[in-house]
Amino acid sequence: MRRASESFIAVDWGTTNRRAYLIENGAVTRTHRRQEGVSISSRTTYAGQVAAIRDELGNHPMLLAGMIGSNIGWHQAGYAQCPADIASISSQLLHVDSQTAIVPGVATNLHGHVDVMRGEEVQLLGAPAAGLTPDSGLFCQPGTHSKWAKIQAGRIVDFSTSMTGELFALLRTHSLLAAHLKSPTHADDGFHCGLKRAERMDLTCALFEIRAAAAVRKDDRDGDASSYASGLLIGSEVSVCLRGAADRRVYLLSDQTLAPLYAAALEHHGREVVHIDSQHAFVAGSLAIYEQWQ
Amino acid sequence: MRRASESFIAVDWGTTNRRAYLIENGAVTRTHRRQEGVSISSRTTYAGQVAAIRDELGNHPMLLAGMIGSNIGWHQAGYAQCPADIASISSQLLHVDSQTAIVPGVATNLHGHVDVMRGEEVQLLGAPAAGLTPDSGLFCQPGTHSKWAKIQAGRIVDFSTSMTGELFALLRTHSLLAAHLKSPTHADDGFHCGLKRAERMDLTCALFEIRAAAAVRKDDRDGDASSYASGLLIGSEVSVCLRGAADRRVYLLSDQTLAPLYAAALEHHGREVVHIDSQHAFVAGSLAIYEQWQ
Repeated sequence: MRRASESFIAVDWGTTNRRAYLIENGAVTRTHRRQEGVSISSRTTYAGQVAAIRDELGNHPMLLAGMIGSNIGWHQAGYAQCPADIASISSQLLHVDSQTAIVPGVATNLHGHVDVMRGEEVQLLGAPAAGLTPDSGLFCQPGTHSKWAKIQAGRIVDFSTSMTGELFALLRTHSLLAAHLKSPTHADDGFHCGLKRAERMDLTCALFEIRAAAAVRKDDRDGDASSYASGLLIGSEVSVCLRGAADRRVYLLSDQTLAPLYAAALEHHGREVVHIDSQHAFVAGSLAIYEQWQ
Repeated sequence: MRRASESFIAVDWGTTNRRAYLIENGAVTRTHRRQEGVSISSRTTYAGQVAAIRDELGNHPMLLAGMIGSNIGWHQAGYAQCPADIASISSQLLHVDSQTAIVPGVATNLHGHVDVMRGEEVQLLGAPAAGLTPDSGLFCQPGTHSKWAKIQAGRIVDFSTSMTGELFALLRTHSLLAAHLKSPTHADDGFHCGLKRAERMDLTCALFEIRAAAAVRKDDRDGDASSYASGLLIGSEVSVCLRGAADRRVYLLSDQTLAPLYAAALEHHGREVVHIDSQHAFVAGSLAIYEQWQ
């Protein structure tokens, strides 16, 4: 067991960037962020990057979470099976050396639905561990691959992933709709039209309507469609992921770009949204895991 | 009015290729196909390409259909509004010169659903005109943008488009799933698993499972997922597009790659599939329109 009063470094190392926190006496005293996600690193450079983090933040024990533990990361850290909690995750840390450990992901396989997460589990378990949320509830983490997790008594009991963010990026970059999806997205009237249209649950047809409407209009109001398309996609995700969920309240772990969009979609579906600071939750989860690092 | 006994050229000019038919006395006597769709042509070269077709097939009247009449084609040919039939389409031909006409697309706007087609209408109206099908029924034309059309008394009364083919191409080429979607697709066990999984109507979650399953498996059975993903996407499309359709039978206008996949999906949903030769339907539709060319 390690004590929370010791200093350590927690790193949230994702696909596109990494953020490192120096945690002393349970509080973040320094942090830095680099655009050095696993997608641009090669296995041979990870040790160098880890050394560089220590050069900057001090020679402390280091806990690494996220895609750094995947098959495109430094070392594969495996998965803790649902129901997963701080204890089961801590017991499955991958020890690179005595001062460096990688957090495993979490896997579920309920009712024939196979799913995995990697990195999100630190926030999900950190929020209730730090009292930011109750220890049971429905949690939503929007992103490239949005996670929806059911937490009971501080354990992740099941979750699912929606490719919403990646799909939107593909449509904006490579699809026939790209020219119509150039504007930034906002929770505006267009977004709400998209939410409403999403209720028909025929996403691939609804998306083509963007092209059809532009063809019939013969004008250049392309900018309008970006928020609308976002409403369609997020509305479809929220409809599906709230299915069978009696929760009146949803805990939203989100960055500031997506938070207002998901909040609007959840409120459209009659849910109360509780915003949780995702960095705060990550640090809390890291602390809880660190205390159980054997 | 022109007589079907005259010789003319019908061109199906799409996004990625064009196919030209010399029709004499109501029958195709010569045909050629070029990989010269509108996506690689520029407006200045269309006149040259049209001249080249005449050099090869003879100096005859020419009827052009498809994306050649769109805003990325030669001249914009507008849309005939649903209900659309041979007469309304013929009356809205865009006359480039006395011997060259472009077929308009078809637009619908029922119950707030806006949609457009361009090129498909020739096949859809040609099939019943030539007696290949009855003059009423539900028609499916799989493709990059699949069309589902309701035909009554030889008129297109409504239709919708699903971006299924484009979405699959995006996923195969640019997405996180690309590595798992390299194999050709077949109506095999994997495809049927995808059809079954699609019934839950949570496509963006189901797609991520392909990645999750591969991550948990830790093996290289990536090839398996291609037919499965195709089953998911086509199954989702068929579920949505059969909604509220009492038709026991569906007329399938498809190329040979997609026909077995859509037939399997339609049969999975308890429908009888009638395969219609789409080139035969195109020629029949062109003949019917040509006869009414003023």
